[in-house]
Amino acid sequence: MSKTADQQQAAAAGQKVTVQDDFWGRYIRLVQDTVIPYQYEALHDRVPEAEPSHAIANFEIAAGRREGEFKGWVFQDSDVAKWLEAVGYSLSIKRDPELERQADEMIDLVGEAQYEDGYLNTYFTLKEPGKRWTNLMDCHELYCAGHFIEAAVAYYEATGKDKLLGIVCRFVDHIETVFGPEEGKLKGYDGHQEIELALVKLYRLTGEERYLKLSSFFIDQRGQEPNFLVQEWEQRGRVTHWTGTATDSIDPGYNQAHIPVREQSVALGHSVRAVYMYTAMADLALLTGDAGLREACERLWKNTTEKQMYITGGIGSTHHGEAFTFDYDLPNDTVYAETCASIGLIFFAKRMLELVPDAKYADVMERALYNNVIGSMAQDGKHYFYVNPLEVWPQACSCNPGKHHVKSERQGWFGCACCPPNVARLLTSLNQYIYTVHGDTLHTNLYIGSQLNVTLGGTEVALVQESQYPWKGEVTLKVSPAEAAEFGIALRIPSWSRGMEITVNGGLVSDSVSEEQGYAVIRRLWSAGDVIRVSMPMEAYRVYAHPNLRADAQKTAIQRGPLVYCLESADNSEPLSSISLNEAGTLTETYDESLLGGAVVVEGTGFRVAQGGWTGGLYSREKAPLEAVKVTAVPYYLWGNRGSGEMKVWIPE
Amino acid sequence: MSKTADQQQAAAAGQKVTVQDDFWGRYIRLVQDTVIPYQYEALHDRVPEAEPSHAIANFEIAAGRREGEFKGWVFQDSDVAKWLEAVGYSLSIKRDPELERQADEMIDLVGEAQYEDGYLNTYFTLKEPGKRWTNLMDCHELYCAGHFIEAAVAYYEATGKDKLLGIVCRFVDHIETVFGPEEGKLKGYDGHQEIELALVKLYRLTGEERYLKLSSFFIDQRGQEPNFLVQEWEQRGRVTHWTGTATDSIDPGYNQAHIPVREQSVALGHSVRAVYMYTAMADLALLTGDAGLREACERLWKNTTEKQMYITGGIGSTHHGEAFTFDYDLPNDTVYAETCASIGLIFFAKRMLELVPDAKYADVMERALYNNVIGSMAQDGKHYFYVNPLEVWPQACSCNPGKHHVKSERQGWFGCACCPPNVARLLTSLNQYIYTVHGDTLHTNLYIGSQLNVTLGGTEVALVQESQYPWKGEVTLKVSPAEAAEFGIALRIPSWSRGMEITVNGGLVSDSVSEEQGYAVIRRLWSAGDVIRVSMPMEAYRVYAHPNLRADAQKTAIQRGPLVYCLESADNSEPLSSISLNEAGTLTETYDESLLGGAVVVEGTGFRVAQGGWTGGLYSREKAPLEAVKVTAVPYYLWGNRGSGEMKVWIPE
Repeated sequence: MSKTADQQQAAAAGQKVTVQDDFWGRYIRLVQDTVIPYQYEALHDRVPEAEPSHAIANFEIAAGRREGEFKGWVFQDSDVAKWLEAVGYSLSIKRDPELERQADEMIDLVGEAQYEDGYLNTYFTLKEPGKRWTNLMDCHELYCAGHFIEAAVAYYEATGKDKLLGIVCRFVDHIETVFGPEEGKLKGYDGHQEIELALVKLYRLTGEERYLKLSSFFIDQRGQEPNFLVQEWEQRGRVTHWTGTATDSIDPGYNQAHIPVREQSVALGHSVRAVYMYTAMADLALLTGDAGLREACERLWKNTTEKQMYITGGIGSTHHGEAFTFDYDLPNDTVYAETCASIGLIFFAKRMLELVPDAKYADVMERALYNNVIGSMAQDGKHYFYVNPLEVWPQACSCNPGKHHVKSERQGWFGCACCPPNVARLLTSLNQYIYTVHGDTLHTNLYIGSQLNVTLGGTEVALVQESQYPWKGEVTLKVSPAEAAEFGIALRIPSWSRGMEITVNGGLVSDSVSEEQGYAVIRRLWSAGDVIRVSMPMEAYRVYAHPNLRADAQKTAIQRGPLVYCLESADNSEPLSSISLNEAGTLTETYDESLLGGAVVVEGTGFRVAQGGWTGGLYSREKAPLEAVKVTAVPYYLWGNRGSGEMKVWIPE
Repeated sequence: MSKTADQQQAAAAGQKVTVQDDFWGRYIRLVQDTVIPYQYEALHDRVPEAEPSHAIANFEIAAGRREGEFKGWVFQDSDVAKWLEAVGYSLSIKRDPELERQADEMIDLVGEAQYEDGYLNTYFTLKEPGKRWTNLMDCHELYCAGHFIEAAVAYYEATGKDKLLGIVCRFVDHIETVFGPEEGKLKGYDGHQEIELALVKLYRLTGEERYLKLSSFFIDQRGQEPNFLVQEWEQRGRVTHWTGTATDSIDPGYNQAHIPVREQSVALGHSVRAVYMYTAMADLALLTGDAGLREACERLWKNTTEKQMYITGGIGSTHHGEAFTFDYDLPNDTVYAETCASIGLIFFAKRMLELVPDAKYADVMERALYNNVIGSMAQDGKHYFYVNPLEVWPQACSCNPGKHHVKSERQGWFGCACCPPNVARLLTSLNQYIYTVHGDTLHTNLYIGSQLNVTLGGTEVALVQESQYPWKGEVTLKVSPAEAAEFGIALRIPSWSRGMEITVNGGLVSDSVSEEQGYAVIRRLWSAGDVIRVSMPMEAYRVYAHPNLRADAQKTAIQRGPLVYCLESADNSEPLSSISLNEAGTLTETYDESLLGGAVVVEGTGFRVAQGGWTGGLYSREKAPLEAVKVTAVPYYLWGNRGSGEMKVWIPE
């Protein structure tokens, strides 16, 4: 494999980024102070109000420390791994000896549950010994391995401790004896992609090419004929893990294994699996220079974000298989938009930004982050949405079975607890998503207050970003090269912004600025103390959807900066469906510091069916009179924090 | 049991009605010429393009005529019964020796499959011998019995042949030995109500009080504690028929057996079961004078039709359990609105009309008949909708699993073939739904051309109704008493009509007309040759839905007379969601005789997103310009006959 200049650059850039931001600081502290400790208790089944996880218990039993049987999902181990990964990132931000002790103990436990030959999985240790690698389609063995690899890399990078790294490397050694192109090895791959991107992280840390090769093997093998998942299913008597009985057919498209990945153009199947795979594909495209992979990534990105993405950055239109459906099918009330899928979309976006400096990837990253992802977590850090709807009628969630998957209030730790630890690991690693480097140019993708140390064109550069995002569009970047040097600073022009202005040291910089793929790129000789000021007018505006997106036809959504807004019963009288926005009305904005930690509230004028104006029965020839009303919208990410009620993002206009 | 004057009157009225109507005549002939012969072939598995029914084969095997095993649903026998019932009605209209021979042969076959002790059910004969009456909840034994009883009554009334009547009476004799209040008998009832209304028919034909008592027993027992369905489920090891495995719980509410029927106020559970039960309850309320049953019927009617009914007369908002959901939850695209449920609603309406002369019952009967029910059948009589949606996007039906149950084109005979034979038996018995008699007053419920012979106040009266419904609102009724006599003729004032005018012998009749519960009642001395002319202005109008009905908020539907209209891709460009109706625009009407047998087409003016006017991606701050368009609506019952395309009833205004 030959590396391109870009790849070397990316590898060499060695960014060190620390988040210092009011808005995100609060979230990160919430994760550190509340979420990680709460999840630690939950993993130990010590949260009375939550369904027992049994994840640690499984390891204790597998390690021989206690008696008992396996409980939980087949992928229960991954919750432990994701917690360890989040702890790694958290310790990178702030050392915490007690937390580190908890993690070290957990790593000891994991190590005790590992087989001599390197194999590690409590389900197959306790519940189906002897059945290793017989149901890759359903059983998440490599998926769990992947999460432990990610955890090991994060924990090593934070602490320098290599015990978990040793555990996963031995596990990968074992996996290499089972899977590969060589005669007698399985030509398979996991039903749930994850190890592919994890192996890339392991390669980046260790420089061991064989990890990259194994990742490529899994990616390349996927969807080849004869189809591994079909063969495997036939070999085990067509039995599915989920019911223990035979099934008539399987759909490899659900696992994105219906055709080779390089031939895929349409996002389909389970949405988390899809974006985890696309992430690994983009990683491999960057590291191997594989044009076919890169083109597939671009096609899949385009389809996902231009045809199948909610305005909140949610993906996955149906709970049946937690899956994509088809182009422009984005129902607001039967939606899935799983939290993990949006997190995976952010992973994918970040890899695309490393591959191609195009602001469209950062636009989507921002959309998913500020809306679907943080909207999934309650302000207490202990309650989560798994499904993130854009329209909710609470009674329908309980009384219409087609909406039972949608909740109007965030739930405690789930039986299937994938989302909460995924939120934790994303927020604690947010520093990884702000900047990318291409050549001697630094790309600012997110306007998040932060300190950066990076080498650009051979010069060490310190950069401090100050931002009042998402409430105000004023951003300051102080650039401090070790010595005066020429390099580029690329500032993303958000797709939602109009009239963004940039000054350097107080002066407009039109001469040295060019617009390149959605960035304002300033190339000049920088000296210590140079200050860039970015001003993005942040007024509320209306958004419309493509006419083919039937669910949003004749409706508008309100956005302000990156934030999508919604109506809630807490501010508007039910039924919300009676409300329409005045097309010509203005939107006014007020910062309400008492609202859930402080937020800008947007008010507009509109109409609603006059209270008592309807005199008919269920149907009538008489239209009810309308009355003028004030329409109050709050940021989507705050919805559902003031009791159960109706909510909607798209409003008739 | 003491009969009220009304009950005696109803029993004594002895109406004989013959349909003579352009609109319905075509449907009835279609059933006679095509549907009944087609279904005969389908029952014999001789329709190549349809899924095999195996219904006759099951009887042949049970009768010992051939070898083989049971195939089909546990209630497959009922398809044979429903066909025989439809044949009975058809022969009442027009004798047909060849059809009668086919039916007689089928009845011989049914008789051969009957046990010595009277038991009759091919599933339990062939598939689970020895398991009779062990799973009333799932296995439809009494349901199938009920359909054979209805068939026997219809066939006897048409032909005077009593062989099938004898079969079912022996079966009922047997059922009486199994079920009843006496010690040692099952205190149970069927999971799918049907026998209750059938036993009432058997009582009406034979005058045997014990049939009425058995029906009352099933109705009275339902929902009593300890709950029979729960006990039975526990006794059989909690096994469900549908998977053969144990279930964690059952929901007797699905079977309307959660509380005693007299305490029920809200329609819930499987919608066909519900309305079949309500029908029997209304029957029994009439025949026994039971006030508690009558009040329950009125409450359940009110909830069903004022909170949970689609504008098309469809009921059942979810395909999960083919069930009701809750008040005002009437989604247009994930709808169920099963054909059979609307037919059951018509049964219920007819019984309520016998109980209470209130036009509201006839309004709903008309709504369901002219929209949901006939809309379910293709113009060829060979293709049917099981689910009758109010909004269809064909690609979503195939690519979004939450809409897989909705089809954009009518299907051939189904594996679960309940709807087509139900349509056949309703249309061939349509003469039973036009008139009701209360005291000496004849109530005209449906404006369907017909001849009636009836006794009113002791006088024999012949009446000829001529109607051009649903296209024109001009109706003529020629009243010919055997001798001049005083009695009442009540003419329903459709809830949709405005400015209905009535003349008798050319003169306005305000003196002798009173408005009573939605009817214009003319009480006078009638002489042979008196002519009533009714004129209902039949212009297209707009309908609005209750503000709590979120799915239809800010939308309007077009109706003309009893017909609900819809937009289809065949007349309007896709996506239909881009189209809105001009609130101030007029609606124009044209009779198009080339349209699927002739229909009035309604045109309005509206707007749609200009072709090519959208320049954004998936979301944009720029609203696409609108252009004025002609909006073309066709009767809902004709939708889906011109290829697969989008359809919608509710249009933004």
